[in-house]
Amino acid sequence: MSFFPASLENLIDKFASLPGIGRKSAQRLAFYVLGLPEEEARDFANAILDAKASVHCCPVCQNLTEGELCSICASDRRDKGTICVVSEPRDVLSIERGHEYNGTYHVLHGALSPMSHVGPDDIKIKELLVRIADNDVDEVIMATNPDTEGEATAMYISRLLKPFNVKVTRLAYGIPVGSNLEFADDATLNRAMEGRTEM
Amino acid sequence: MSFFPASLENLIDKFASLPGIGRKSAQRLAFYVLGLPEEEARDFANAILDAKASVHCCPVCQNLTEGELCSICASDRRDKGTICVVSEPRDVLSIERGHEYNGTYHVLHGALSPMSHVGPDDIKIKELLVRIADNDVDEVIMATNPDTEGEATAMYISRLLKPFNVKVTRLAYGIPVGSNLEFADDATLNRAMEGRTEM
Repeated sequence: MSFFPASLENLIDKFASLPGIGRKSAQRLAFYVLGLPEEEARDFANAILDAKASVHCCPVCQNLTEGELCSICASDRRDKGTICVVSEPRDVLSIERGHEYNGTYHVLHGALSPMSHVGPDDIKIKELLVRIADNDVDEVIMATNPDTEGEATAMYISRLLKPFNVKVTRLAYGIPVGSNLEFADDATLNRAMEGRTEM
Repeated sequence: MSFFPASLENLIDKFASLPGIGRKSAQRLAFYVLGLPEEEARDFANAILDAKASVHCCPVCQNLTEGELCSICASDRRDKGTICVVSEPRDVLSIERGHEYNGTYHVLHGALSPMSHVGPDDIKIKELLVRIADNDVDEVIMATNPDTEGEATAMYISRLLKPFNVKVTRLAYGIPVGSNLEFADDATLNRAMEGRTEM
């Protein structure tokens, strides 16, 4: 039912096409934007165009950047011999928040998923191989998500990396710090048990 | 912390300024928009500009419209003698969904709320009074929300309408159809009891 004016329906459709936004939320967002002062609404539209126009992938690590290289690849204080492979740009942020890791990243922009027709050529695996072939890399840390797709992606890449004679590691599985054993799922507890370390 | 490229941060900020969108969701939405094909991202931005440029308030009922009058005020099949007063354009949609009401609407675009500094001049009350003074109106149905602000707004307007000698009614309070007495709150049950009708 197209009850609202066409351009408002169109805006609602656009919001509803975003992930996690249902029809009702989309209506609320569209009404909110309509209610904004002229200038703020224009700023919103421009923010989309600007970001789209100026953000691109770092040619080295494929993270999002506006400069030629991303700030991490451009920094000479980062250890270029270690590459942490993540699925998404936001995962870089998560690891950076820890202030522990001092190497570089490689952002795959996805994970292998036969169900969603995402194959090896759809994510930035080739770029990773080229990078490892051309540079002196000691260690590749697979930090894809601990789910089926992330796991499969990590396995797949680690097999591709065999001929390069580089150390390939995977983030540790285990119980989260500050959590409660009672609420840990079986798979996690089993992995925590397998990966136990001496105190 | 400004970790992402500036234009991406700006887009995240814009999404985060929308109602009900937190920082994390805003990041997800911004990444999604960045990942859209060039053209679709431009369509999104244009949808905002278009809606903002072409949607305005119907001069009669203040509902949102692209035409000169809204479709309800323009229709000669609607009863112009009955005005249903609602807070927001989306409330019109809710009532229209029932396919029962055949009168016209008046959209206040808000409700009186001293806490948020919304006074009688900030919502479309004056327009309602002018409309009732100039036209032959039999009944005004107050359909503002059944909360404190909506209640206060309905009371305030009904008092203003006294001199016009027009019938002012309020939507019935009671238990929702299909619900369960067990889960009805006290205030609703009391109102349902007060408003009981003979069978």
